[in-house]
Amino acid sequence: MDVRAYTPTREQYVYTFGGAAPALRVKPGEALRLWSDDAFGGALQSVDDLSAAKVDLRFVNPQTGPFYVEGAQPGDTLALHLVALEPAREWGASAAIPFFGGMTSTDRTVSLQAALPDTTWIYELDRARRTVAFAARHSDHRIELPLEPMLGTVGVAPAGNEVRSSLVPERFGGNMDTPQMRAGATVFLGVNVEGALFSIGDGHYRQGEGEACGTAVEGAMTTTLIVELIKGAAPAWPRIEDDTHWMAIGSSRPMEDSWRIANAEMVHWIGQLYGLHPIDAYQLVSQVAQVPVANVVDANYSVVVKVAKALLPDAHAFGGIHDDLRARARRL
Amino acid sequence: MDVRAYTPTREQYVYTFGGAAPALRVKPGEALRLWSDDAFGGALQSVDDLSAAKVDLRFVNPQTGPFYVEGAQPGDTLALHLVALEPAREWGASAAIPFFGGMTSTDRTVSLQAALPDTTWIYELDRARRTVAFAARHSDHRIELPLEPMLGTVGVAPAGNEVRSSLVPERFGGNMDTPQMRAGATVFLGVNVEGALFSIGDGHYRQGEGEACGTAVEGAMTTTLIVELIKGAAPAWPRIEDDTHWMAIGSSRPMEDSWRIANAEMVHWIGQLYGLHPIDAYQLVSQVAQVPVANVVDANYSVVVKVAKALLPDAHAFGGIHDDLRARARRL
Amino acid sequence: MDVRAYTPTREQYVYTFGGAAPALRVKPGEALRLWSDDAFGGALQSVDDLSAAKVDLRFVNPQTGPFYVEGAQPGDTLALHLVALEPAREWGASAAIPFFGGMTSTDRTVSLQAALPDTTWIYELDRARRTVAFAARHSDHRIELPLEPMLGTVGVAPAGNEVRSSLVPERFGGNMDTPQMRAGATVFLGVNVEGALFSIGDGHYRQGEGEACGTAVEGAMTTTLIVELIKGAAPAWPRIEDDTHWMAIGSSRPMEDSWRIANAEMVHWIGQLYGLHPIDAYQLVSQVAQVPVANVVDANYSVVVKVAKALLPDAHAFGGIHDDLRARARRL
Amino acid sequence: MDVRAYTPTREQYVYTFGGAAPALRVKPGEALRLWSDDAFGGALQSVDDLSAAKVDLRFVNPQTGPFYVEGAQPGDTLALHLVALEPAREWGASAAIPFFGGMTSTDRTVSLQAALPDTTWIYELDRARRTVAFAARHSDHRIELPLEPMLGTVGVAPAGNEVRSSLVPERFGGNMDTPQMRAGATVFLGVNVEGALFSIGDGHYRQGEGEACGTAVEGAMTTTLIVELIKGAAPAWPRIEDDTHWMAIGSSRPMEDSWRIANAEMVHWIGQLYGLHPIDAYQLVSQVAQVPVANVVDANYSVVVKVAKALLPDAHAFGGIHDDLRARARRL
Repeated sequence: MDVRAYTPTREQYVYTFGGAAPALRVKPGEALRLWSDDAFGGALQSVDDLSAAKVDLRFVNPQTGPFYVEGAQPGDTLALHLVALEPAREWGASAAIPFFGGMTSTDRTVSLQAALPDTTWIYELDRARRTVAFAARHSDHRIELPLEPMLGTVGVAPAGNEVRSSLVPERFGGNMDTPQMRAGATVFLGVNVEGALFSIGDGHYRQGEGEACGTAVEGAMTTTLIVELIKGAAPAWPRIEDDTHWMAIGSSRPMEDSWRIANAEMVHWIGQLYGLHPIDAYQLVSQVAQVPVANVVDANYSVVVKVAKALLPDAHAFGGIHDDLRARARRL
Repeated sequence: MDVRAYTPTREQYVYTFGGAAPALRVKPGEALRLWSDDAFGGALQSVDDLSAAKVDLRFVNPQTGPFYVEGAQPGDTLALHLVALEPAREWGASAAIPFFGGMTSTDRTVSLQAALPDTTWIYELDRARRTVAFAARHSDHRIELPLEPMLGTVGVAPAGNEVRSSLVPERFGGNMDTPQMRAGATVFLGVNVEGALFSIGDGHYRQGEGEACGTAVEGAMTTTLIVELIKGAAPAWPRIEDDTHWMAIGSSRPMEDSWRIANAEMVHWIGQLYGLHPIDAYQLVSQVAQVPVANVVDANYSVVVKVAKALLPDAHAFGGIHDDLRARARRL
Repeated sequence: MDVRAYTPTREQYVYTFGGAAPALRVKPGEALRLWSDDAFGGALQSVDDLSAAKVDLRFVNPQTGPFYVEGAQPGDTLALHLVALEPAREWGASAAIPFFGGMTSTDRTVSLQAALPDTTWIYELDRARRTVAFAARHSDHRIELPLEPMLGTVGVAPAGNEVRSSLVPERFGGNMDTPQMRAGATVFLGVNVEGALFSIGDGHYRQGEGEACGTAVEGAMTTTLIVELIKGAAPAWPRIEDDTHWMAIGSSRPMEDSWRIANAEMVHWIGQLYGLHPIDAYQLVSQVAQVPVANVVDANYSVVVKVAKALLPDAHAFGGIHDDLRARARRL
Repeated sequence: MDVRAYTPTREQYVYTFGGAAPALRVKPGEALRLWSDDAFGGALQSVDDLSAAKVDLRFVNPQTGPFYVEGAQPGDTLALHLVALEPAREWGASAAIPFFGGMTSTDRTVSLQAALPDTTWIYELDRARRTVAFAARHSDHRIELPLEPMLGTVGVAPAGNEVRSSLVPERFGGNMDTPQMRAGATVFLGVNVEGALFSIGDGHYRQGEGEACGTAVEGAMTTTLIVELIKGAAPAWPRIEDDTHWMAIGSSRPMEDSWRIANAEMVHWIGQLYGLHPIDAYQLVSQVAQVPVANVVDANYSVVVKVAKALLPDAHAFGGIHDDLRARARRL
């Protein structure tokens, strides 16, 4: 199978879900190789590049896309299978942005306190060792951490003619910032507009769950993915399937609502996959779910509810398309 | 080392943290083997035992204890090493209690809607296979799930002369309902009153993260633990160490506050363990933390922030007492 | 002064803030008389018109506008003085929409419970008595309530190229649903795009604070207002001034964040109006604020923090424009 | 009618609801005149008395009581009619306590930011003018504000053998911090233990809604009240009736849950008072409620939902006891 490559120029960066003209038209079944810039548009290159001077929070997470998927109609399901994520630079950047993040007051959880010091960290990538190196700013500590590439944002155009900042995670996906969004995963998104208009960006060379300081090890990324379309069957909220888990992702505030969304989605999904009564599915999910928090720093907080396939009998979602995509990925 | 056994009579069940006379006085270094009844006091024995008739939410999670630890003073740290958790009955019970749980309105998240149907599930234990069996109530599904015993409640008497229901997770520990509270873990709790007055209960044969329906596979449990006391150094919130992870647990509402508490504790702990500046510790934790939700159903919601030791250089907390306790546990 | 009238055709209804072409261009100082349809687009005309059949939540709160204000630039302040609000129909409608409102689980605060019964109420208007009549659906109760017209939505186009549903209250104003938005009030909104692009809609013949069931006494409205523009000085969040109070409105989730936003705005505003140090302004606001909740049902919850002018020395905001607008309104 | 006076010695101060022996036994119908110290136990007497040095948050809001009401049984309703509240000192104190209050991170809404400056304000009382005087700490501003005495805490012993800090508002009342708790109000509290064991304290010479900085104009108070007991009919949460309004108070976190509680209580109360179907009561309350926030700073946030009697037909709650108590109060 051919892989179609696309690298946006800086002028082609898009900072919203919805509201932008398609970068390309793609057919279901096509494989794409997409370059995406980091969350800061590459603006933080050394520890002396501070976010207050270099980053405008209205224009972060530049998206690569959007891509018009032929045949996609509202109510359909877009399936994106992430084949490979490879760092596209030799370093990643992270920052404690004033009044942004989980351990500071923010523009929403407002206080009268002074901001934490605006600080930037640069992580050097070692491709051979598959590591990125944390280097403390106030001491000599240097700690190599495993490279674990993921995408912070994967989304489609919203419903109801809305246009949302690429900082937002929502029903349409977006800036969910979950480490589960990695190579080998198939993400399912409900289509809201003709052509779906999906985009990706905000690559992370690694990220802790919660993305506590507001930023991961942000890095330009080369993503290989396969696009598929399932007619109808749109899930209300994003779902992910990989070889080991079923996952649903809720994004709202307060965080218990994010969980309620994701957990209800999982109850309905497990109920449907196994033919269980909702109250039985509720009980079963209660005893088998894993709940890794995704982010507690974005415009909405995101929570993943996942269930290990190994705990349950065999089942196939969306016509077993994940297994098929895995097979196709191996042939790329 | 001798192991001292204690099984409360029903009259000795305690339903609070604080406010009860000690069941036993124990010395630091002693090992205990404690029997605890299930969350329902054994009242749900068949699927026909419904919670509305059999369970009074003011008197659930019967505690075994409290135990007076000799020498424990406010500001000290109680360390409880969980050596072994073994089911003490051949079945566990779970229930969808009306207006209790995560997928229903409650007495706090109130609505005018009707309750979900009051439903009980009984899980048969297979000791040989180390499983408990989910049996659907509305279909013939039967799914064996791995036995993964844990304690829902481990706590000490609260500060400020408070007495709290055994349904409450808080600074003093209590009903945190995290699957991390399992054999091999050492839990650290700040001492608030002379003697610490710790207790345990609410054994779960297994539980999903979030404890979505409000109850786990609730079961009577035999817990073997070693009691230790560290003078001073009381953590503000409960911490757990096991062979692989450092963990902090926050319990509050909304759930982002539970996370904020646990994440700040972890930032401070990692900062202290490795001699990092707080802003560097914040950054490091942001890239390495795992955040498994514990419960979203109790009087407070509980969130665990954990860091894998394997990612970081060697370090020793509380004088390396966990390794020592592991060694002592093997000699029991 | 002339008053320019505008009544949209149904095809001209707009369901977003941002994303729509201007309906009119207006000059600062102009007075407008605007007709707006009710939140349901007039679809609920009898108690037999149920929301499930007649209302699509993606297309409610039809906006009248948007209006391009000549000279308005990002960073400027749009001042809209509400001169008069007069019901434009002889009845208002309210509804308990399934899974929408404050006493039900919703698409965010999800549960597995059944919806409340879809119910519509029609309130007859008595222009002479200035009342609307509540008529119970399940008994013969009929209670006349004072007519207290207000606008649920007043907003400008969002920043960052976002387009938001007219169900959303945010920094840009929008669906704040506060009874304070009534005749005699001047609302100040920060301008985000050239021309400001403001719109109004969602008239309420009366509404309780909180808008508990999710809908007020929804009614078509004729609104007379004067448009003014202040160069610069854009407030971060909407503010209202009337003859008796200074007000700031925060809209977010959870509701404490809405309050934090509004309270911080008020602290900064009072500090600026009176030349107080922030910590003194914080103290003063703490002892004089009134905090009437606006809505607990929309995409964000809205909270008003208001301070009675009578408690404080004379002061003038935005160059004293409110008093000037009041005078101009009397001359219309 | 005689009025029985009680002034605790400092040793008799109580810092909890529940867990303390009765100070007095009183009979239903008795009138009491109670002296209560301020929230700080009188420790802040000048602006140089800083909370960090003088205030231990585990021991604030000293309670006067508890009082054992003869005949009170669990399930009964305690009615306390506030006849008069008179400042018992010539000054009140307020403070911005580090990491306590609404415009700062706290021990729950944790951040890594530095605390706001620990600051104390002293308000001089002018009995003739019925004012307290705000004096800015960082400028020469001095603003006289009307004296509006209220009680921050009125509570009974909790259910389930709990003992709670006098900082806590909950089902049992407690530290609700609502300006509605003033002379002329009758508060209704469900009785949880024999004798009810009510107490009062935390007098405020005035307070803004929200109690933004965490403290009001805190002052010692002389409270005259009449104690009454209604057999049965215990409300789930505190209610207040005065000459003009029905009120219900919810206290929880997040703040929307406080509102949900109070609003549901009001829906049920209005439904019961007027014989309305719950969905009709829901609708009616939605159009008439006022929702003044009480506090956003305590262990739980408190929200009042109130309905003006003038909007509705005549009705009588709890056998019309409020009117009777008003009459009795006039004869004192």
